[in-house]
Amino acid sequence: MADAEALLAQSHVLEHAAPLALDGGQALTGVRVAYETYGTLNADKSNAVIIFHALTGDQCVASPHPITGKPGWWVRMVGPGKPIDTDRFFIICANVLGGCYGTTGPASLGPDGQPYAMRFPVITIRDMVRAQVGILDALGIEQLHAVVGGSMGGMQALSFAANWPERTRAALVIASTARHTAQNIAFHEVGRQAIMADPKWKGGDYYAGGKGPDKGLAVARMAAHITYLSEEGMHEKFGRKLQDRTEKTFGFDADFQVESYLRHQGLSFTDRFDANSYLYITRAMDYFDLAEEVAGGEGGGRLADAFRASKARFCLVSFDTDWLYPTAESRTIAHALNAAGAPVSFVELSAPFGHDSFLLDVPALDRVIAGFLKQ
Amino acid sequence: MADAEALLAQSHVLEHAAPLALDGGQALTGVRVAYETYGTLNADKSNAVIIFHALTGDQCVASPHPITGKPGWWVRMVGPGKPIDTDRFFIICANVLGGCYGTTGPASLGPDGQPYAMRFPVITIRDMVRAQVGILDALGIEQLHAVVGGSMGGMQALSFAANWPERTRAALVIASTARHTAQNIAFHEVGRQAIMADPKWKGGDYYAGGKGPDKGLAVARMAAHITYLSEEGMHEKFGRKLQDRTEKTFGFDADFQVESYLRHQGLSFTDRFDANSYLYITRAMDYFDLAEEVAGGEGGGRLADAFRASKARFCLVSFDTDWLYPTAESRTIAHALNAAGAPVSFVELSAPFGHDSFLLDVPALDRVIAGFLKQ
Repeated sequence: MADAEALLAQSHVLEHAAPLALDGGQALTGVRVAYETYGTLNADKSNAVIIFHALTGDQCVASPHPITGKPGWWVRMVGPGKPIDTDRFFIICANVLGGCYGTTGPASLGPDGQPYAMRFPVITIRDMVRAQVGILDALGIEQLHAVVGGSMGGMQALSFAANWPERTRAALVIASTARHTAQNIAFHEVGRQAIMADPKWKGGDYYAGGKGPDKGLAVARMAAHITYLSEEGMHEKFGRKLQDRTEKTFGFDADFQVESYLRHQGLSFTDRFDANSYLYITRAMDYFDLAEEVAGGEGGGRLADAFRASKARFCLVSFDTDWLYPTAESRTIAHALNAAGAPVSFVELSAPFGHDSFLLDVPALDRVIAGFLKQ
Repeated sequence: MADAEALLAQSHVLEHAAPLALDGGQALTGVRVAYETYGTLNADKSNAVIIFHALTGDQCVASPHPITGKPGWWVRMVGPGKPIDTDRFFIICANVLGGCYGTTGPASLGPDGQPYAMRFPVITIRDMVRAQVGILDALGIEQLHAVVGGSMGGMQALSFAANWPERTRAALVIASTARHTAQNIAFHEVGRQAIMADPKWKGGDYYAGGKGPDKGLAVARMAAHITYLSEEGMHEKFGRKLQDRTEKTFGFDADFQVESYLRHQGLSFTDRFDANSYLYITRAMDYFDLAEEVAGGEGGGRLADAFRASKARFCLVSFDTDWLYPTAESRTIAHALNAAGAPVSFVELSAPFGHDSFLLDVPALDRVIAGFLKQ
């Protein structure tokens, strides 16, 4: 199946000719954006859909992962006859700015031929979107049929609809939020400190040789991974079950299945992700506050004002077991969209998988997405 | 106030003459238990109360902390005329086995004169209680007026009531649980991996000189600390407020107050806690499952059976914002006590501080404790 899907995908790289002006005040030259497309752009270029990926995602939404070889992260959703139908839509999915799958990020070479590392500028969610708007410009796509994203992808979808209000007819935001809360920031800060505490991080200059801060990155991933699952889901999946043993060892091995699972999640993550990218992308998420952005400073903005100019239809989806971006966050967005007079549908789906529900087998989500995009 | 309280405290060390038989099958020789007492034991030795401390607590429940000099961790609850009234009760609070405040733990010297480090046996909550029962034996206290504990202290109180059913007339269990869930284990495993990932941990053999794995321990503490606070409480206290600045720096400094707060929590913790103790105590908590213990093996036990022999009155207190050991965990214990025919009162208190509510200004808790102990 992965091979069949792969045939549908085309890989591209956009090179930004002009420097990309960033929210932090700097301009980044020579920005490259790696992206995949699926399906065919129609004659009037009206059937394009951008899918924005989440924190540790990539552009291979429905094609095999370049490192692990696993099927694309949303292959259940994107393909012929699937909810995001490649027979009907022209799908674009780009690696985010700051990422490590071909788009310019901290591992990329700067103008001096050395990796940026921590000289890479701190970016925002809007900067990520900015880099991807360049794809639309290059392809001559005036207006998208829709923008779609879950989690950090949803933040980008919101940012796109707010900042480029004429350029999409619809925005589908799943398991996301209009701003990072103190608890969201706190978990990310633990991850960053875990990476920075690893002596192999070397202030970010670990690209020259040997391994990077794999141990710190694994701990960061473990901490984050807990927030992606629900307490109930973990209980059902693991409970207090032991791993390949019948009795506790009275030692520090991974006696419990949940320990073994988390260790595996941490270790395998280091094979496919750059630690500095993790720092920059989590920072962008923590900085995200759409209301604040509208106000042009710290605090005080009204979220509704972010959507005043938008002509898009919105669809918001939350999951009842998601405690990372709980339903209340989507409700806040729905209220703001109502206040701005934007058409919005909002549904909380019941699914046991916590935040990760948007990536997993939740047939109700398939129906919501298919229905919303068909309009 | 701290000085006045200090006058009431007496410091003691119990030396176990016999080896302490542990749940893991080993026997630990030369066990020392450091404890404080407050108030006066009456003539018939009927007014003694044990307070069990939590994961990172210590015996200085109402006397200045030996390292930080701060007032005792429950000074609001323990003292003359306070809910745990030192004018009326003889209070005992001991550092747990595996701890780092005078009771035998991984930093203690083994029979060969070298620190145990990771040669220290893995212990259980029941082993911690066992070491403290020795204090009662030494003082000739047949039966306690009550055992009291919050969080891990509550686990010890439950273990005491279940395993030494004749030796207390009452058990007060606050913000606790009868078993660690998959999510509880997961958070602890992140902390342990953070410590073990620090090269200064050196397989536990860091006592000889220099600093231990402070960076790893700080990360462990940061991750754990998030679980002690409620999302709402963090939002109210920190929100997205910036730390000593008016604009985001577009860097990796602690821009947000919550980052600064967490970093401080992590760093200051390393001044007062031994990393190996953190490993052993979290392991004991993860192993805790009172129903499983009763069944004598892995899984399958009935929690009610743990309390069949108990003659004690029970009081269970949970907090509505505690997501570490949420109310449902206390309810499970209440149901088991009901099934065992034990007298039990159970109250969920409303407080904004999450799990840490048991340590903070929650007047309703003061009233519950005072009322329960007066009976």
